[in-house]
Amino acid sequence: VAASPSIGDLGEAALVRRIRERFGPQASELAVGIGDDAAVAAPVRGTLDVLTTDSLVEGIHFDLAYSTFEDVGYKALAVNVSDIAAMGGIPRLALLSLILPGHLAVSDLDGLLDGFSSMASAAKVTLAGGNITRSPGPLIADVTVIGSARPRRILRRNGGRPGDALYLTGSIGGAAAGLAWLQRGGSGAPDGPLQDCVARHRRPVPRLRIGAIAGQTRAASACIDLSDGLGDAVAQIAAESGTGAVIDAAALPLHPGARDWFSADGDPIVPSVSGGDDYELLFAVPRKYRGRFRGVINHARGIPITPIGELTADRRVLLTRNGRTEPLPAGFAHFGSDPLL
Amino acid sequence: VAASPSIGDLGEAALVRRIRERFGPQASELAVGIGDDAAVAAPVRGTLDVLTTDSLVEGIHFDLAYSTFEDVGYKALAVNVSDIAAMGGIPRLALLSLILPGHLAVSDLDGLLDGFSSMASAAKVTLAGGNITRSPGPLIADVTVIGSARPRRILRRNGGRPGDALYLTGSIGGAAAGLAWLQRGGSGAPDGPLQDCVARHRRPVPRLRIGAIAGQTRAASACIDLSDGLGDAVAQIAAESGTGAVIDAAALPLHPGARDWFSADGDPIVPSVSGGDDYELLFAVPRKYRGRFRGVINHARGIPITPIGELTADRRVLLTRNGRTEPLPAGFAHFGSDPLL
Repeated sequence: VAASPSIGDLGEAALVRRIRERFGPQASELAVGIGDDAAVAAPVRGTLDVLTTDSLVEGIHFDLAYSTFEDVGYKALAVNVSDIAAMGGIPRLALLSLILPGHLAVSDLDGLLDGFSSMASAAKVTLAGGNITRSPGPLIADVTVIGSARPRRILRRNGGRPGDALYLTGSIGGAAAGLAWLQRGGSGAPDGPLQDCVARHRRPVPRLRIGAIAGQTRAASACIDLSDGLGDAVAQIAAESGTGAVIDAAALPLHPGARDWFSADGDPIVPSVSGGDDYELLFAVPRKYRGRFRGVINHARGIPITPIGELTADRRVLLTRNGRTEPLPAGFAHFGSDPLL
Repeated sequence: VAASPSIGDLGEAALVRRIRERFGPQASELAVGIGDDAAVAAPVRGTLDVLTTDSLVEGIHFDLAYSTFEDVGYKALAVNVSDIAAMGGIPRLALLSLILPGHLAVSDLDGLLDGFSSMASAAKVTLAGGNITRSPGPLIADVTVIGSARPRRILRRNGGRPGDALYLTGSIGGAAAGLAWLQRGGSGAPDGPLQDCVARHRRPVPRLRIGAIAGQTRAASACIDLSDGLGDAVAQIAAESGTGAVIDAAALPLHPGARDWFSADGDPIVPSVSGGDDYELLFAVPRKYRGRFRGVINHARGIPITPIGELTADRRVLLTRNGRTEPLPAGFAHFGSDPLL
């Protein structure tokens, strides 16, 4: 059998041409697209530019034993559009910076691009440009997304006040349980709710619609996404807002697969709160905005949005359960106890 | 002596705080700066957004035996603003995505940020946000720059026509000669013109002013920067414009240090044309725009701008010397013969 050629056989110019062809004719919203020194796009009239960048690093954020190249391409864009949603914005354009081992098979690069493309279609994001260079080690996909939002419709982290209710989209712990299953040697397709957990680790679904509606309707005082876990998100929104927080353990929407999986080792709350990669949205909602926020809940198309606690004047970040309080478990730490290294 | 703490001792949140403090109070052009899910900025009225991304990878683009952390931070931004200049735009905002080994000393991260900051000041670029994550291997600085340009003032690669003259800023071969000196074990400060060559490898000076003026005055039909060498730049501008090119060897502005250094091994033209990292600008100038282009030359503040050849209807890319033609040497190939790997 003929081996698939490696990207090192093709060279940079051919790789850029390949990406340009794969993403089709230049999108109409671009004055200049892939293949020049830079891309050029007109801003959307009456809006602000919302800018974010985030990278997926092999060995830190993904393991090619657990995720396909398609998964990596999909997730590299998903985690970025999630940040735009957390600002109340709408993602528009992406830049894809790839740092690739020279021995990577061209077919694997194609898989990565296919995964990226499927998330781009789902999020209505246009690939405007990027960069491709060689890696002496890990595969890295570093993505920048440019979105738009109207002035005074931005959801920051620092707008919360004591008494604001905290609302959480979807569920927590699923991605962490899925990764744990994979790391303990799970193979094939897991049964029941764990199947969705593995999917959430590999292909998180960013809450684009909910974030955009919450921004446009000014229904929240603050918002953050859960890239590094609920514990981290609550701590950050509280710290930036100059408040503390109390979270009600009984109210937490644990993913059913996470509840099953983590219960085998004891308490499922701690790993579900500290586990990363959920990409849900956490909102702070002042009492006077509850009517507006009900409109967000009504347009969430079946995604549950659950009240889980509130911001407090007391600066501590606490978890209450069975009438007792304890510190809320911390989030996922990229420079601390990293599950993939 | 107390060892400098490593970034792994600090954790991600403390590192982001450190960067936020280091870059001072939030710039007035940002609605939201460092530390939220995304940055927010108002577009400049009446302009288009110009977007580019480029990464520096340890072991591919730099070697910490030859460059300081300050050099790396400076160059990571310089190579990106050079791309904005090559479009005729003005750089405004940057996002800095850092992928860092956990053992990196905090003082070395500070050095990298200082270097980035010095280029940001020189280019009048504001750090809007970014990302920081752990690397299992090389240090990587991936930068995105957002600039602005007025409609119909964009300098693309594909606008050249047969008969357009090719003009080159500055000189070529300097960065390649500087790197070659370092790789052959040069230590201390080299003498004479080689000193500037080493500086050009470590801290290239992007031609921001010349690119912006050429764009604003519509003085060129096409432009590209020389990140991967003159040979690559000429081939790319010709391929995108559907032309060929002829370059006159006698007209090439070789850096004096490159001429000295490479002459010791034979012909200095080939390594100067194929060597990367020069970050000069190459312009295609139609005959009817020569008056406008003279205005660019007059405002270049001592940077020479030299006619080196022209685009041709014949699709070959050639070098003429002593009345004979040969193929123009190819540029630096990231996936081919890489000088640092």
